[in-house]
Amino acid sequence: MPHLCSMRIVIIGTGNTATILGRKLKGAGHHIVQVFGRNAAAASALAYELECASANYWSIVDRTADLYLLAVSDVAVEELRKELNLPDSTLVHTAASVPLDALKGAAGHYGVFYPLQSLRKGSDRLPEIPVLVDAGDSATLQQLEELAGSISGQVATADVAARLRLHLAAVFCNNFVNHIYTLMEEWCVRQGLDFRLLLPLIRETAERVQELT
Amino acid sequence: MPHLCSMRIVIIGTGNTATILGRKLKGAGHHIVQVFGRNAAAASALAYELECASANYWSIVDRTADLYLLAVSDVAVEELRKELNLPDSTLVHTAASVPLDALKGAAGHYGVFYPLQSLRKGSDRLPEIPVLVDAGDSATLQQLEELAGSISGQVATADVAARLRLHLAAVFCNNFVNHIYTLMEEWCVRQGLDFRLLLPLIRETAERVQELT
Repeated sequence: MPHLCSMRIVIIGTGNTATILGRKLKGAGHHIVQVFGRNAAAASALAYELECASANYWSIVDRTADLYLLAVSDVAVEELRKELNLPDSTLVHTAASVPLDALKGAAGHYGVFYPLQSLRKGSDRLPEIPVLVDAGDSATLQQLEELAGSISGQVATADVAARLRLHLAAVFCNNFVNHIYTLMEEWCVRQGLDFRLLLPLIRETAERVQELT
Repeated sequence: MPHLCSMRIVIIGTGNTATILGRKLKGAGHHIVQVFGRNAAAASALAYELECASANYWSIVDRTADLYLLAVSDVAVEELRKELNLPDSTLVHTAASVPLDALKGAAGHYGVFYPLQSLRKGSDRLPEIPVLVDAGDSATLQQLEELAGSISGQVATADVAARLRLHLAAVFCNNFVNHIYTLMEEWCVRQGLDFRLLLPLIRETAERVQELT
């Protein structure tokens, strides 16, 4: 998907999703205008990395950005939306389980920008991140598809039902599988076996799925 | 581990293990002298790939090789060992569940060369293959460690108890995990969801284990 234009983005949140999406968006040529976070030190640290300003209270948040990326926990989305009033901008949340309409009235345009990946800011690598988008109007949907296309080769539209189902499948493919690996590592330790001998098999198993599908 | 010398090897078997180990050993500079298989067409096909002779009955098997790699099913090891008489050579099997002593008396030296990996000859890739070795005498053990070291960065000594336990852990890390992926793919199809959106997560989950361990 072609990357049509650079957007001016305010990132709300300082956790894994905010950090990783911030890195991806900046890397794709977008302009991160500001990072907002209630914890001033965390906001400042991420802003430093993304080379922009930080804010830890609403009155100094830049109101001129194109997009406000609400990268906070699912429960915090509801709290924060009450404080937001962005009639001239687009507001998106990044939560699997929050309906699109949760943002209704908080901004002129609103949508969802859900990254279907396990995100950890401590990692040196930036993994491929499929992005599921949704929006309250077709122009915003197209805008979000373009934005997602600038950082990902896999972009799809998904309503909250589809997001929740894909999230459930993701829990099986990630958490359940990780649990098996953890159990096996513990078992190997107890048996005096070297779990690292299984790492090439684990990698091969994941690679094989990529080919067969 | 340095690769001290090139060995002259006869491969017994034409399946996945015979094929993948044959490719790895040839790639590491060893000389594959012959491929033996009861099915003449299969033996000939693998021999063609490995640029060597093939045989489908014992009387024409080369008796001058350094090593005879018995890459057949666990149950076939017992049958074949009765036909083998290689007093001047080293005979190894590649089976997780077969004790070392199953080869006793069939050759001057004997051992185990077990590849801890899911091997499929149809794949274009040659994955990393940890090799678990064992032998009836210390000189043969050293020889097998060197041979394994020429095709793998992960070589360990393991008796049949350790091989069986690692094999069990491998079944969890491969078959059980694959089963989860298969269930999720079927479920996504039923739900009208695109399972390919989960592939980057599956890859990331496997990569994360490589780093954490």
